[in-house]
Amino acid sequence: MAKVLMKGNEAMALAAIKAGCDAFYGYPITPQNELPEYLSKHMHEHGRAFVQAESEVAAINMVYGAAGAGARVMTSSSSPGIALKQEGITYIAGAGLPAVIVNVMRGGPGLGGIQPSQADYKQITRGGGNGDYYLYSLAPESLQEAVDLIKESFDIADYFRNPVMIAVDGLIGQMMEPVDFERPTPKWDLKEKTWAADGNRANREKNIINSLYLDPNDLENHNLKLKEKYDEMKKDHQRYEMINMENADVAIVAFGSTSRIARTSIEILKEEGINCGIIRPITIYPFPSNAFAEVPDSVKDLLVVEMNLGQMVDDVKLHNVKRLPVHFYGRVGGIVPEAEEIVNKVKEIVGGRNE
Amino acid sequence: MAKVLMKGNEAMALAAIKAGCDAFYGYPITPQNELPEYLSKHMHEHGRAFVQAESEVAAINMVYGAAGAGARVMTSSSSPGIALKQEGITYIAGAGLPAVIVNVMRGGPGLGGIQPSQADYKQITRGGGNGDYYLYSLAPESLQEAVDLIKESFDIADYFRNPVMIAVDGLIGQMMEPVDFERPTPKWDLKEKTWAADGNRANREKNIINSLYLDPNDLENHNLKLKEKYDEMKKDHQRYEMINMENADVAIVAFGSTSRIARTSIEILKEEGINCGIIRPITIYPFPSNAFAEVPDSVKDLLVVEMNLGQMVDDVKLHNVKRLPVHFYGRVGGIVPEAEEIVNKVKEIVGGRNE
Amino acid sequence: MAKVLMKGNEAMALAAIKAGCDAFYGYPITPQNELPEYLSKHMHEHGRAFVQAESEVAAINMVYGAAGAGARVMTSSSSPGIALKQEGITYIAGAGLPAVIVNVMRGGPGLGGIQPSQADYKQITRGGGNGDYYLYSLAPESLQEAVDLIKESFDIADYFRNPVMIAVDGLIGQMMEPVDFERPTPKWDLKEKTWAADGNRANREKNIINSLYLDPNDLENHNLKLKEKYDEMKKDHQRYEMINMENADVAIVAFGSTSRIARTSIEILKEEGINCGIIRPITIYPFPSNAFAEVPDSVKDLLVVEMNLGQMVDDVKLHNVKRLPVHFYGRVGGIVPEAEEIVNKVKEIVGGRNE
Amino acid sequence: MAKVLMKGNEAMALAAIKAGCDAFYGYPITPQNELPEYLSKHMHEHGRAFVQAESEVAAINMVYGAAGAGARVMTSSSSPGIALKQEGITYIAGAGLPAVIVNVMRGGPGLGGIQPSQADYKQITRGGGNGDYYLYSLAPESLQEAVDLIKESFDIADYFRNPVMIAVDGLIGQMMEPVDFERPTPKWDLKEKTWAADGNRANREKNIINSLYLDPNDLENHNLKLKEKYDEMKKDHQRYEMINMENADVAIVAFGSTSRIARTSIEILKEEGINCGIIRPITIYPFPSNAFAEVPDSVKDLLVVEMNLGQMVDDVKLHNVKRLPVHFYGRVGGIVPEAEEIVNKVKEIVGGRNE
Repeated sequence: MAKVLMKGNEAMALAAIKAGCDAFYGYPITPQNELPEYLSKHMHEHGRAFVQAESEVAAINMVYGAAGAGARVMTSSSSPGIALKQEGITYIAGAGLPAVIVNVMRGGPGLGGIQPSQADYKQITRGGGNGDYYLYSLAPESLQEAVDLIKESFDIADYFRNPVMIAVDGLIGQMMEPVDFERPTPKWDLKEKTWAADGNRANREKNIINSLYLDPNDLENHNLKLKEKYDEMKKDHQRYEMINMENADVAIVAFGSTSRIARTSIEILKEEGINCGIIRPITIYPFPSNAFAEVPDSVKDLLVVEMNLGQMVDDVKLHNVKRLPVHFYGRVGGIVPEAEEIVNKVKEIVGGRNE
Repeated sequence: MAKVLMKGNEAMALAAIKAGCDAFYGYPITPQNELPEYLSKHMHEHGRAFVQAESEVAAINMVYGAAGAGARVMTSSSSPGIALKQEGITYIAGAGLPAVIVNVMRGGPGLGGIQPSQADYKQITRGGGNGDYYLYSLAPESLQEAVDLIKESFDIADYFRNPVMIAVDGLIGQMMEPVDFERPTPKWDLKEKTWAADGNRANREKNIINSLYLDPNDLENHNLKLKEKYDEMKKDHQRYEMINMENADVAIVAFGSTSRIARTSIEILKEEGINCGIIRPITIYPFPSNAFAEVPDSVKDLLVVEMNLGQMVDDVKLHNVKRLPVHFYGRVGGIVPEAEEIVNKVKEIVGGRNE
Repeated sequence: MAKVLMKGNEAMALAAIKAGCDAFYGYPITPQNELPEYLSKHMHEHGRAFVQAESEVAAINMVYGAAGAGARVMTSSSSPGIALKQEGITYIAGAGLPAVIVNVMRGGPGLGGIQPSQADYKQITRGGGNGDYYLYSLAPESLQEAVDLIKESFDIADYFRNPVMIAVDGLIGQMMEPVDFERPTPKWDLKEKTWAADGNRANREKNIINSLYLDPNDLENHNLKLKEKYDEMKKDHQRYEMINMENADVAIVAFGSTSRIARTSIEILKEEGINCGIIRPITIYPFPSNAFAEVPDSVKDLLVVEMNLGQMVDDVKLHNVKRLPVHFYGRVGGIVPEAEEIVNKVKEIVGGRNE
Repeated sequence: MAKVLMKGNEAMALAAIKAGCDAFYGYPITPQNELPEYLSKHMHEHGRAFVQAESEVAAINMVYGAAGAGARVMTSSSSPGIALKQEGITYIAGAGLPAVIVNVMRGGPGLGGIQPSQADYKQITRGGGNGDYYLYSLAPESLQEAVDLIKESFDIADYFRNPVMIAVDGLIGQMMEPVDFERPTPKWDLKEKTWAADGNRANREKNIINSLYLDPNDLENHNLKLKEKYDEMKKDHQRYEMINMENADVAIVAFGSTSRIARTSIEILKEEGINCGIIRPITIYPFPSNAFAEVPDSVKDLLVVEMNLGQMVDDVKLHNVKRLPVHFYGRVGGIVPEAEEIVNKVKEIVGGRNE
C-alpha cells in the first residue's frame, strides 16, 4: 500500500476515521490543533459527529455521553487541557466506558510553553482524577506507530471498556513522515455493546451509565472489578521494544520522541565502540516490567532519558529486578535533547565506572 | 487553653481563620460541606472574603487570583471536585503561588460514593495536573493534628510559594473531637510578598503572575527553579511518626485515618504477643523516605494499610532500603477497615513466615 | 399528499429537516423537549448535525458559529432558556446572520411554570438583547401552520440575513394534529451565501463575521443598514388573517393558541346573535398594522385576548387607526382561557355600550 | 457639604456604598469598568462583599442569591452584558427580590461599539427576560442625579421587592463632574426583610426564595400580585421633569444624556426666537404618561430625541393624549447628537408647518 506524507496531528486524525471513530469532541489548544481541524473538515463526510465544544470540560463530558451511548469516541488536547478533563476522565473510567484520548504534551506546569515535552508522564500514568483507576496508555515514537496504535486503540478501549490514552508530544504532532494507513493492526475480540444507553429498546432492560455507588459494598465490588482490568493489562498487555540489547553495556530507557533520538545516539556510540541498547516502553501504563527481566547480563547501567525531570525513573527503579544503577538524563521546558547530549551522558556513565 | 469539641470540617475551617486565611473560594460537595458552610458564616465577621463560586473550576481560579494578589487563600473540596481543579492547581504551582487546598477524600473513581477513602493518594502526590510540579501534602490523623497542620500550612505555602494539600477523609471531616486551637505551631521564616500583583504601586516595578514561558530556555530554568523547592522539601521537610517501633516485628505503614485504626490494632496485637509498630507518614509528599532507614532490625515485614487498592505501596517499595517484604491490606469504596482486619492480616504475615 | 398525525414539537422538528436545516444546537427545557429529542434521532440520518450543548448560552453560540459558516441552523427553547440566549441572539442579529429560533413559551417570569403562555410577547418583539434589532417573528395557531411557517422560515432568515423567531406555546408544542408536510410553501429569492466564513477559499476574499464596529460612523451605518431590513419587513412582509370580519360588531385581536380558541368563541357568539370577527397577527414582528386599516366600519370595539397581562395591547393601540375602544382579556400563569370566557367578555363589552 | 469631583462610574460606585450596598457581583465590560474597579478597592474597607464573577451569568446569579438572603446588592454591566443577564434578572423579578442593576449603555446590537448609546431602551423597559415583569428604571442626566438616584434606588428596590435599573450611557459613566454625596434623598417606608432566606432561624418559619409555581392557579395569582406592583409604580411613582414648558412651541422628549444636550439646544433656539421645552422622563419605566397631560396648549409638536433609532417613540405616541405630531431625531452607533443638530431639527419642524 502506498505511503502518504502527512503531518503527525493530521495522520492521527485520519487514523481515527479509519478506526471507525463515530464522534470527536474537543477544544482548541496548541500543539494539537491540526488534529481537530482535520476532523472538523472530514468527519461529516463520513456521517460522523464533530463538535468543537464550549470548553475542555464540556468536550470531555460530551465524550462521556457519546461513549455511554455506545459510540466510538475520541478527544484530543494538550497538557493543561488534559488537566481540565481529569474529572471527566475519571467519570468515564469509573463508569467503565471506552474512549480514546490523545495528549500532545507540551511544557508545564500550568500554561508552560508550546514546545514538545514528556512532563505529563505522571499525570497520565497515575490517574490525575480521583480514585483507583488507570488509563491504558500508549506512547508511539513515529507517525506510523501513532497511526497503527490509534487504529488499534478504539478496539483496546472497547475491549477493556476503559479510556485509552495516546501520549505523544509536539514533535510527533508537528512532524511530517510518510505513513501507510492500511497496515493491518491486531483485531481484538469485541463483544456487542449490550450495555450501551443507546435509547429505549423493546428487547432489553434499561441500561444505566453511572459512576456513583452509594453503598460502600457495591462501590468496593465495583473497584475490585475495575482492578481486574488493570491486573489483566499488567499481566497480558504490556508492550515494549528491546533495541540493540544483545551484548549492550548500557541500556537506555526512553519512550516516544526520546527513544527516537536515543536510536541516533546508539549509532554514534557504536562508532565510538560503546554498545548501547534501548528499552522502549510502548505502553507507559501498564509499565513494561517484563522488559527488565529480559535485560541481558552484559548491561551494567540503566539510563532513563526523558523530556521531564525524571518522572519515569520511579517506575524503572520499581521494576529494576537486576538492581542495576539507574541514571537519568532529561531536558525540560520544551527543549528536546540532542543525540550528542545522550551520547555524552552514556560516556560519562561508562567512564565513571573506573573512578 | 481549653479544648473545644468540634466537628472535623468545622475545626479545619476555624483553624484556617486562626491562621489568617484572607479568602476562601469553593463549591459544595459531600463530605466536606461543613468546612465552607462554617466559613460562609464566619469569614465576614473577620473582614475576610468567602465566595461560593459557580463551579469548582471557577473556585480554583479565584484562588489563583487571590493568591497572586498576595492573599492567604484556601479552597476545599472532595475527590472529583479536586479532579476538576487540576488545571487551576497546576497553574498555581506553575506560577509559584501559595494556597491551601483541603481534599476530604471520598470513594472513586468518578462520582464514586460519599464514604471515607484514601483513593486520591496518587492524584495528590503525583500531580494530576500537567508538568513537573508537586504539592506539599499533609495527612493528619486526628482533628488536633488537622488543626495544627492547617494553621501551619499557610506558612508552609508562603515559604515555598507552592500549594499545600491537606489530605483527609470523610472520617476526619465528619467526626467530633476536642481540639485546642491555641496550641503553638512552628512559625516559618517568611519574607514580605514583594512579588504580589497587589495593585499599581509607585514604589515598585510591575509584578506579573504567570505560568507561561514561551522561550524553552526560560521554561527550563523555571522548571529547574521549581525543582529546587521540591528537592528542599524532600531533603529537609519530610514528616513522619515512628510508633512503637522498638523491637517491633512488623511495621505497618499507614497515614491519616488508617494509621489511627492501626494504633488500635497494635494494642490488640500486643495483647496477643505480637510486637507491631507503625510508620506514619505525615507528609505524603515529600514521602518520608528517611523513616525507612530508621526501621530497626527487629522488623521483618512491612504492611502497608490503606483505604485504596495500594496506591502508597510503590512509594514504600522505592524507599524500602532494608529490602523487607512489603505486604498490603486495603479496603475500598468507602469501607473503613476495622482494627481486627489489620490484626488478622498481621497474624497472617507472621504465621506465613514459617510456611 | 397524506397527512401524518404528529405531536406539535415533533412536527416542527420534521419541518426543519424538510426545510434543509443543516444543524441544530439546543439545551433541554420543558415544554419543548420533544423537538430536540426528535432531531437527536433523525438529523444524523440525513447527515446533519445535532448537538445538545452544555448550556443555553453554549447552544446559541454554536448557532452563531454555524450560521456564520453558512449553514441553515436552528435552535429551540422555552421562555427562560430564550432569556439566557439573548446575548447570542443579538450577536446573530448584529452580525447579520440567518437562524431559526423556536420559543415554546411557558409561564413566567423566571422559572414560572411549564404550562402554555404567551408571556414572552415583549421579549420576542422588542429585542431582549441590546441594541436596535428585531426578529422576524411568526406565531402559528395550528400544527399545519407551524410546519408551513418553519419550512418557510429558513428562507426568510436567509433572505433577510436575520434570525426568525417561531413563537408558539406549550399547547401547540404538546398537541397532536394531522399535518401535511408536503404542502408547498413560498420560495424566497435567495442569493448564494458569498458572505459566509466557510473556510479559506482560493477564489474569494477573507469573509469575517462580526458584530463589533469600533468606529461610531461605521456602527451608525451598520445600524442604518439593519434598519432597512426592519423597514422592509414592516412595509412588505406583515402577515395576518382577517376572520369573519364582514359586518363584525366586535373584533378580537389574538395570535397563536388564543386566536384558535377565539374561533370557537365567535361560533358560540354567532348562535347568540353577536357577530364577532378576529384579527389574527401571524407576524407579531412586524406587527400587522395594515390589518387595522382594513377593519370594517361595523366594528365598534377591539378586544385583545392573550395568555399574558396584555403585552400586545400597546401594539394594537399604536395601530388602531380607527380609534376604537381597546379592551383586554387575559389569563396568565399557564391557564388557557376557555372559549366561554371570551364569549362572556365580548357580551360584557356589547352590553356595556348601552350603559 | 463640599462637592467632590469624580468620574461618573466611580461616583455611582461610591453612591452605592453610601446607600448601604452590602454586596456587588459583576464582570468586566467597557464602558462601565471603573464602577466595579472602584468597588473592588473600597467595598472590603466597609466590610462589604465584592466579587468579580466568572461570567455575567455567574454574577447575576450571585446577585440573585445575595438578594434572596436579604442583602442590599448591586451589579453593573453594559449592553451585551445585560443581555447575558436577562435570565437572572427575570428570576430575581419573578422571585420578588430587590436588586440594583446599572446599565452603562453602549452601541449595539451584539458587541457593537463602546461609545455612548441609548439603544437598550426597549431591552430595559420591555423585559428582555421572559414573562410579565418590569424593572423600575431610572435614567439620570447628570452625575449628581445619578448619585442621588442610586442612593435612593436601594430603598426603591427594597420597597417594591423588585429590581431597579439605572440606565445611563458611556457619556455619564466617563465624564467628570462635582458631586455632593450627602444631599438628602427621599427615604422610603421600608419593612424588615422577614421573607429573606438568611439562615435557619429558631423564631420563624422556613423562608423559600423561588420563581417556580407549577400550579397554574398559583402562578396566575403570583402574576397578578406582581402586576399590583407595576400598577402602583405607574400610578404613584412616575418621575419626570418639565423644562421651559411655559409657552413652549415645541416640546422635546428626551432622557439621560440626550436631555442634557437638548438643554443647550433650547438655549440656542431661545436666542433664535423659538420657545422650546423639554419633557424629561426620569423614570423610563414606568413611562411618565402624566407629563403628557400637562403639556401646555402652546405646544404644537413633540420631538423625541434619542441615541437610538426611535425606541421611545412608541411610548410617546401611546401617551400623547393631546394627539400632537410626534417627530423623531436620533443618532446611533455611539454618535452623540450635537446641540446644533437638535436645533436644526426643531427649526425644520417649525418651518415645515407653513408648507
